[in-house]
Amino acid sequence: MSLKTGLLKSLLRQSKVPNYAPIVLQYHGYYKHEHRDKEKWKINRNAAFALVGTVLSGSAVNVKQKESKDAKEVFEAGAKRQDLPTFTAEEVSKHDNKKSFWVTYKHGVYDVTSFLPSHPGGEQIYNAAGLSIEPFWNVYGMHKTDEVYRLLESYRIGNLHDDDVVDHSNDELWAKEPYRDKRLLVKTAKPFNAEIPPKLQVQHFDTPNELFYVRQHMPVPDLDAKTHKLKVVLVGKTTTVREFSLDELHKFRPATLNAALMCAGNRRSEMNKVKPVKGLSWTTGAISNAQWSGVYLRDVLIHCGLDVNDVAGKHVVFTGSDIDATGVNFSTSIPLHMAVDPNSQILLATSMNGAPLPPDHGYPLRVVVPGAPAVRSVKWLQSITISTEESPSHWHQRDYRSFNASTTWETADFPSAPPVYSLPVTSAICDPVDGDTVTPRKGQVEVKGYAYSGGGAKILRVDVSADRGRTWREARLQSDGAAPRTHYAWTLWSISLPVDAKQMEIWVKATDSNFNTQPENFDDIWNIRGILSNAYHKIKVNIKP
Amino acid sequence: MSLKTGLLKSLLRQSKVPNYAPIVLQYHGYYKHEHRDKEKWKINRNAAFALVGTVLSGSAVNVKQKESKDAKEVFEAGAKRQDLPTFTAEEVSKHDNKKSFWVTYKHGVYDVTSFLPSHPGGEQIYNAAGLSIEPFWNVYGMHKTDEVYRLLESYRIGNLHDDDVVDHSNDELWAKEPYRDKRLLVKTAKPFNAEIPPKLQVQHFDTPNELFYVRQHMPVPDLDAKTHKLKVVLVGKTTTVREFSLDELHKFRPATLNAALMCAGNRRSEMNKVKPVKGLSWTTGAISNAQWSGVYLRDVLIHCGLDVNDVAGKHVVFTGSDIDATGVNFSTSIPLHMAVDPNSQILLATSMNGAPLPPDHGYPLRVVVPGAPAVRSVKWLQSITISTEESPSHWHQRDYRSFNASTTWETADFPSAPPVYSLPVTSAICDPVDGDTVTPRKGQVEVKGYAYSGGGAKILRVDVSADRGRTWREARLQSDGAAPRTHYAWTLWSISLPVDAKQMEIWVKATDSNFNTQPENFDDIWNIRGILSNAYHKIKVNIKP
Repeated sequence: MSLKTGLLKSLLRQSKVPNYAPIVLQYHGYYKHEHRDKEKWKINRNAAFALVGTVLSGSAVNVKQKESKDAKEVFEAGAKRQDLPTFTAEEVSKHDNKKSFWVTYKHGVYDVTSFLPSHPGGEQIYNAAGLSIEPFWNVYGMHKTDEVYRLLESYRIGNLHDDDVVDHSNDELWAKEPYRDKRLLVKTAKPFNAEIPPKLQVQHFDTPNELFYVRQHMPVPDLDAKTHKLKVVLVGKTTTVREFSLDELHKFRPATLNAALMCAGNRRSEMNKVKPVKGLSWTTGAISNAQWSGVYLRDVLIHCGLDVNDVAGKHVVFTGSDIDATGVNFSTSIPLHMAVDPNSQILLATSMNGAPLPPDHGYPLRVVVPGAPAVRSVKWLQSITISTEESPSHWHQRDYRSFNASTTWETADFPSAPPVYSLPVTSAICDPVDGDTVTPRKGQVEVKGYAYSGGGAKILRVDVSADRGRTWREARLQSDGAAPRTHYAWTLWSISLPVDAKQMEIWVKATDSNFNTQPENFDDIWNIRGILSNAYHKIKVNIKP
Repeated sequence: MSLKTGLLKSLLRQSKVPNYAPIVLQYHGYYKHEHRDKEKWKINRNAAFALVGTVLSGSAVNVKQKESKDAKEVFEAGAKRQDLPTFTAEEVSKHDNKKSFWVTYKHGVYDVTSFLPSHPGGEQIYNAAGLSIEPFWNVYGMHKTDEVYRLLESYRIGNLHDDDVVDHSNDELWAKEPYRDKRLLVKTAKPFNAEIPPKLQVQHFDTPNELFYVRQHMPVPDLDAKTHKLKVVLVGKTTTVREFSLDELHKFRPATLNAALMCAGNRRSEMNKVKPVKGLSWTTGAISNAQWSGVYLRDVLIHCGLDVNDVAGKHVVFTGSDIDATGVNFSTSIPLHMAVDPNSQILLATSMNGAPLPPDHGYPLRVVVPGAPAVRSVKWLQSITISTEESPSHWHQRDYRSFNASTTWETADFPSAPPVYSLPVTSAICDPVDGDTVTPRKGQVEVKGYAYSGGGAKILRVDVSADRGRTWREARLQSDGAAPRTHYAWTLWSISLPVDAKQMEIWVKATDSNFNTQPENFDDIWNIRGILSNAYHKIKVNIKP
């Protein structure tokens, strides 16, 4: 057990710093990956860049200005200095031990090895080994003095690479972020967005909760199942409002659903290669599958007096408990006809794979809208409103809408663009991954992946080509036994491909029960937000002789 | 009015040869097109060839062997002769007047100009001007004697080109074929398969009945609405059988549905260019749209005692009154869950665009399964059977199934291949057509076409490119106001494209409400039967300076 891990575990056991430990763990996990291999490191550098992009495009929280302009200006460490060399976060992260102990603060890189014995907080400083000290100082505010800043600056040895500088100024909003599994591949830390590594994706039909990809728009709210309430509002001539505790919700007939949830931006990184798009640089890991349990939304709405024959032009607005920096709750909506169609099987879910929903997946209550982009499956659900209006939120009105390949940010007309309520057929190769060197067995390479289509469509066939589309072979499929038109789970597939060369390019395409297939390339489905990125997935692998 | 047309009209008025006139008209219409222009002629020659192909692949009726081997062999005209020149049907068709009067019989071409005055049947012989006399002799069997054959052979001048030789040996099965509009583009005469000309396709949202494309597998049966019965069989522990007259069917609540029907092989001719496929060489005209009226299949099945909650693994077998040469009725089936889903809106239709169903479209009763390939919308419906088995018919078991691009006739495993019950998103440019020379107005060319997606999906966007996909423009859409998930009508679209060159290549692609789009090319969706041919539609037009 490393010094760092040991310390953290001991802190957690003693529960001395309950709000502190999770942050440390999160950061620990984040950088830990980067130590492992060069390739992932590059991904994370891009992710840090993507975070900046997300903030710019307005879909992450705004940075709160904490310093008042009237306050006396103090010297603050971490300004960029032209006279010093530049280090990447990866280089800094190697100096994580008593012999060489570096930390970063904003643009500054510091070698504080000689300071270690005199740290007033003792060994807690080791949690920041090779990392930024900002998240820690944001919790332990006593560091934020002119004296400490000047002391820190006296250890200055360089500048942190621009791509690796992360804004920690509103860290306190994130103090209650849950523990995250270290195997997740973090795209942005705040909000926390992370994909499941492709090889783990295909190891389980139902993704273990701790490996389920995470897509947050804001900090995770701190909720309690015992006190949580769901408000149901039917707007009309006489508006009715009902409120349910979770115990009251559980009086409806229980329902279970096997469903994948996929971010509309899954596989965006491939579309980004055609021409840059704005959004998190997801590879193939923004989809996972689970068994969800709870009650049917339809049952609850009917109980509240909804007329299922009066749905035309109406919407169901879901509001979560997560709030942005300006105090606005996350919300989005779906057309009401989707909510009342029994085939839609929309759940008010309280459990995931047999366990209570984890905080990252909506504890204690989440609506699960299967077959739709996961953004519609609002987490930490606190209210449902039936109305003639779509959700007015930024996330609904200015995001997750479909444009053609020639629409630009300047020409995009969001109000007239169709909101994305379903997902096209897609597939991906998860094992091996692009760039792997694989060892054939009996002249064959085993290839695995997933396929998925929205709206309840079933995956009928997955075709794999090892010769750039000249010939196609049918993969073996593993799917659940859902009833027709309610195929909300993903399909896992595998195939043995004969090899006869040193390198192999593998393509995959799926066909669904509407006989739709994937487009060959991303060029003509390109769109400004990089969503619905479902062209063939193509990888190259090296074959071990 | 030409001699031929005048004669036919007079015959029809006098009703002297009720079974004869329709054949003549049909042939008249068929060849008439060929007279008009060289291009269509080529299409029809290909169509004749396709008919032979269809027979070979087993999806047309088998040729009945009429001559018994024991019967005394008579000399029969029309054998191929090596000593004579070859003429195409087009060349023969030019000799259609008193000055030069040619006919064909099997492989023989005959100049019977000098025989005209002595024809015992008088001027009726003029109906065969420039055509095969076989359909006529099949009605007037007195010609089929050794003496007449030898007389005919004495006028022999050549051989008919192999591609133009049509098997007329079972013409009597076709004696009751209805009148067909001359504007239809005939692909095969027997069975009658014809598409609507593209420019007429986009002139009406609801296709006029006489222009609705026709896809027959067999001769059109001669039925009477007053006596027609529909049998409904529920196979089970206690099999129940019910029978309904059309009057009895009309006691169910009336239902109307606006729906396009499209052959699964629409646009096959484009796929055929990648690599030959077996099937009728449809261009873009194997789809039309109509207003269908009748009663819901679901209502009738529930009335007959069907348990709508016991549908898993069951099928609805539809049987038509049309029979093949071996006496087998046409039949196919759909999964029972489709029939009971209210969103499916499956009709037992008796009317089309406000008129009784025309014979070519199923008079007096047709099931309309919207969103599915038109083959499932069985015409001349005589029975419905609910059973655990799919239809055992050739048409269901050995056709209309989905294979990948590398499956051959040798490797195709029909029993495990998924039957096609829905249709992928498609679109086509109808006006102008490929090769047209167009005159711009104010520097713009108006382009029109259709888009369609199966399974009730709505067309959300149609994108058109005039620069081989570099830029895409959104077309204006015309669609009906169907409820969500029940978009069974097609969508017509139009767009004004600026022109700045002598030639223009136009591409179209559509996106549906599941956000599926069309594949760019046919290569990877190619399949042995040439169905589901939904890649981008691309045409080239010349611009008038």
